[in-house]
Amino acid sequence: MSRRIITISREFGSGGRTIAKLVADKLGYEYYDKDLIEKIAEGTGFSKGFIERYGEQAPGNSLFSYAFLGRTVNGMAMQDYIWMEQRKIILDLAEKGNCVIVGRCADYILKDRGDCLHVFVHAPLKDRAERIVRLYGETSEKPEKRLMDKDKKRSVNYRYYTDREWGLSQNYHLCLDSSEFGIEGCVDIIVELSK
Amino acid sequence: MSRRIITISREFGSGGRTIAKLVADKLGYEYYDKDLIEKIAEGTGFSKGFIERYGEQAPGNSLFSYAFLGRTVNGMAMQDYIWMEQRKIILDLAEKGNCVIVGRCADYILKDRGDCLHVFVHAPLKDRAERIVRLYGETSEKPEKRLMDKDKKRSVNYRYYTDREWGLSQNYHLCLDSSEFGIEGCVDIIVELSK
Repeated sequence: MSRRIITISREFGSGGRTIAKLVADKLGYEYYDKDLIEKIAEGTGFSKGFIERYGEQAPGNSLFSYAFLGRTVNGMAMQDYIWMEQRKIILDLAEKGNCVIVGRCADYILKDRGDCLHVFVHAPLKDRAERIVRLYGETSEKPEKRLMDKDKKRSVNYRYYTDREWGLSQNYHLCLDSSEFGIEGCVDIIVELSK
Repeated sequence: MSRRIITISREFGSGGRTIAKLVADKLGYEYYDKDLIEKIAEGTGFSKGFIERYGEQAPGNSLFSYAFLGRTVNGMAMQDYIWMEQRKIILDLAEKGNCVIVGRCADYILKDRGDCLHVFVHAPLKDRAERIVRLYGETSEKPEKRLMDKDKKRSVNYRYYTDREWGLSQNYHLCLDSSEFGIEGCVDIIVELSK
């Protein structure tokens, strides 16, 4: 069975986004990540930067976000509103044509479709730390701390909106350790299993 | 890199054991499951049936097991003693030659070796329920209940001895939904990735 839609969830620094882009290129599928954020921004009227910041963050996810708890749109908490918009856009994109969608709980949003392959990409902390320093450079914060903060946010956001545990194998058809198979290796596996 | 040792952990009814046997056959690797239990039984002096019953059960895992809490071997709780024996046997088998090992926390016990492929096989409850009824027949207990009881025991045992969460993708190199790829499909993926 050919999988029309591939969702790729990933630990920060695992190379999941790079893998997703290469899979889309190889299969000739549309690729949605930053583009998706732009579409959401257009739909909601919020700025792109604003959505980037809050699109993967559940209400109460950090002390900082509490400051925005009072902000509502159509009677909903701001993040819930963004979530609803994201959900609608992802459902529309899935209807439109073959695509690879990165993150944004797309695996959950599209869980009832039979034509999806849901993938999770992860790697040990040590390998991910090396990768983010190589790609994004050093910062004042230790790479391990940056990774854990980012993963924590994604995990809390995923649980808040899906009531499922992020990274639990049972939520995905396929989970891959990118440090074991390499970026190209993961791409080949996903492309092969999408056919 | 060729993987000399493949560990396969599995949800009950997912076909993980069948997959493991077929992988071992295809690769010409030794296969350890019931045989492993027999070896453990020989080593400890306990009967094979006894080990089968307690080998994947942590102390306090069920009301029934409390009855055995007082039973010790060399100053250890009985299940802890069996765990230690299992651990030694698995480490020995890994040294001996190419093999596929099913369950028994082998993924954790062999986690520091670089020549292993650690796999987790799962499937949705509905598919597993159909499979166990087809293979083992009906019992007075609903198949869903049998599955959940068995998974619960494995999960509690795994957490007790490894301090990790059973089925969390990060503990394995590869996780597969056997209902998505089929038994033969899973075998082919694992064999291909072992080379």
